[in-house]
Amino acid sequence: VGQAPFQSERFYEHTPPGVVTGLAWTAMGGSTLYVECAKIESSPGKGNLKVTGSLGDVMRESSQIAFTFARTLLEKKEPENTFFADASVHLHVPHGGTPKDGPSAGCTMITAMLSLAREKPIKANLAMTGEVTLTGRVLPIGGVKEKTMAARRSGIKELVFPKGNQKDYEELAEEIKEGLTVHFVESYEEIYDVAFEKK
Amino acid sequence: VGQAPFQSERFYEHTPPGVVTGLAWTAMGGSTLYVECAKIESSPGKGNLKVTGSLGDVMRESSQIAFTFARTLLEKKEPENTFFADASVHLHVPHGGTPKDGPSAGCTMITAMLSLAREKPIKANLAMTGEVTLTGRVLPIGGVKEKTMAARRSGIKELVFPKGNQKDYEELAEEIKEGLTVHFVESYEEIYDVAFEKK
Amino acid sequence: VGQAPFQSERFYEHTPPGVVTGLAWTAMGGSTLYVECAKIESSPGKGNLKVTGSLGDVMRESSQIAFTFARTLLEKKEPENTFFADASVHLHVPHGGTPKDGPSAGCTMITAMLSLAREKPIKANLAMTGEVTLTGRVLPIGGVKEKTMAARRSGIKELVFPKGNQKDYEELAEEIKEGLTVHFVESYEEIYDVAFEKK
Repeated sequence: VGQAPFQSERFYEHTPPGVVTGLAWTAMGGSTLYVECAKIESSPGKGNLKVTGSLGDVMRESSQIAFTFARTLLEKKEPENTFFADASVHLHVPHGGTPKDGPSAGCTMITAMLSLAREKPIKANLAMTGEVTLTGRVLPIGGVKEKTMAARRSGIKELVFPKGNQKDYEELAEEIKEGLTVHFVESYEEIYDVAFEKK
Repeated sequence: VGQAPFQSERFYEHTPPGVVTGLAWTAMGGSTLYVECAKIESSPGKGNLKVTGSLGDVMRESSQIAFTFARTLLEKKEPENTFFADASVHLHVPHGGTPKDGPSAGCTMITAMLSLAREKPIKANLAMTGEVTLTGRVLPIGGVKEKTMAARRSGIKELVFPKGNQKDYEELAEEIKEGLTVHFVESYEEIYDVAFEKK
Repeated sequence: VGQAPFQSERFYEHTPPGVVTGLAWTAMGGSTLYVECAKIESSPGKGNLKVTGSLGDVMRESSQIAFTFARTLLEKKEPENTFFADASVHLHVPHGGTPKDGPSAGCTMITAMLSLAREKPIKANLAMTGEVTLTGRVLPIGGVKEKTMAARRSGIKELVFPKGNQKDYEELAEEIKEGLTVHFVESYEEIYDVAFEKK
């Protein structure tokens, strides 16, 4: 009661491998959220995914799409890395007591999984939002204004938005956008290059 | 709220292997949709299907029918191809947050599965709709007018409709049909020949 | 009717290995609770978790998060200890007939699991509360006043609260806080050091 559906407190100074900052919004406003991934165990051919965080049906499906896509992409980027074939992965979205749903954390989930698989943290002060299809197309999301304001409040400096939201972003007041770098993307691989700073 | 149940934005210029354009309609009008298939992994005798995309019960059953039929047909067309016996296939229908149901994406699902199994994209600018039975008979669907208009809006040039809908189509105004090539089919194998351009 | 949702009767003089005192609160007030863990059996690679105690969905997910995190931390603290890889663990929260929910027993569950795995009781007269994320960040909880009063009533001398609740605690009346030692923590490893008295 009286609590924002997504609390926006920043509790990672720098996100470790397996953790990525996303952006959420509800009728209550926008907020940042974290997607956390951890490896439970690893055994040849036993790759699987467990999710927690009071996720609704659409967000659970989104995590399955992310798991399939992350695996496909890692096979392409690092063919020798068998992480997803073998690992039992646990994905959690704090706060555990806050119900969450929707497809827009898709890109955040993929990135958290890849960060865990590659044992590499992503670029600091970067947050992202976007639905991702099974082949890696990035689809537009809602709440561009609320998400941008939430990112600013949390000290985020760089954002990833779907290309389909570029017009929404450009229409925002200048003071909301000031000091932010935004990448508008159509395919997940563009996010990969930003997050892991491929030059 | 205020959003069409199926968004019709075209986000593939050319659909890659595993992706096929379908046609949907609701009380809100018609739209194109994509059926996307990806291989999660492959292990002898471990063929199975996972589906996402907020699909209702009828559409989930439709995906199972498609999986059985696609496997049967591939055994006939390419006896040496053991894809469906071995592959863990993930089928998704964007947008993930939009509930979908009904049997009319049956032919689209079969074609997407076969395109993935054969590693071949289908003919460009082709869309299809039709319920398919377990033996490959193609049954008529609803919304011929709305689906035809949605196809035009998305730049589709060639359509597959069930033979049982030919009369509905012929009754449409000429300006709706102008420039479109339509195949009316009774059995799935006719779709196969169109999609994979067998001469 | 007329029964407190969490009964605060203290029925352990000293908690044995696998048992840790937590703190709960509801509209009816605060109370202590026990998280009890026992090993059902052990078989290489068969590690799993069973939970009882009328736990709601959020508290069940919280137990899964605790199981993943406890395993990860034990691998770091005692690499040779394969308890979680092998053990079938049963976690119970008395009283069995009282419905319970919420994420704030997360740190209590982790500590009970680690106490069982290490076969070591935790420090006497210590109670704790706090949501824990998959990477071990400790998030603030509700009911600081009610939980503090319940701890006093049960003879608890030392408390663990999330750092994010330090301000709430400092605002309490002096007579409520008198004689209590409180640790405010940001990461679970700080709790580990307190509970197992690392000097």
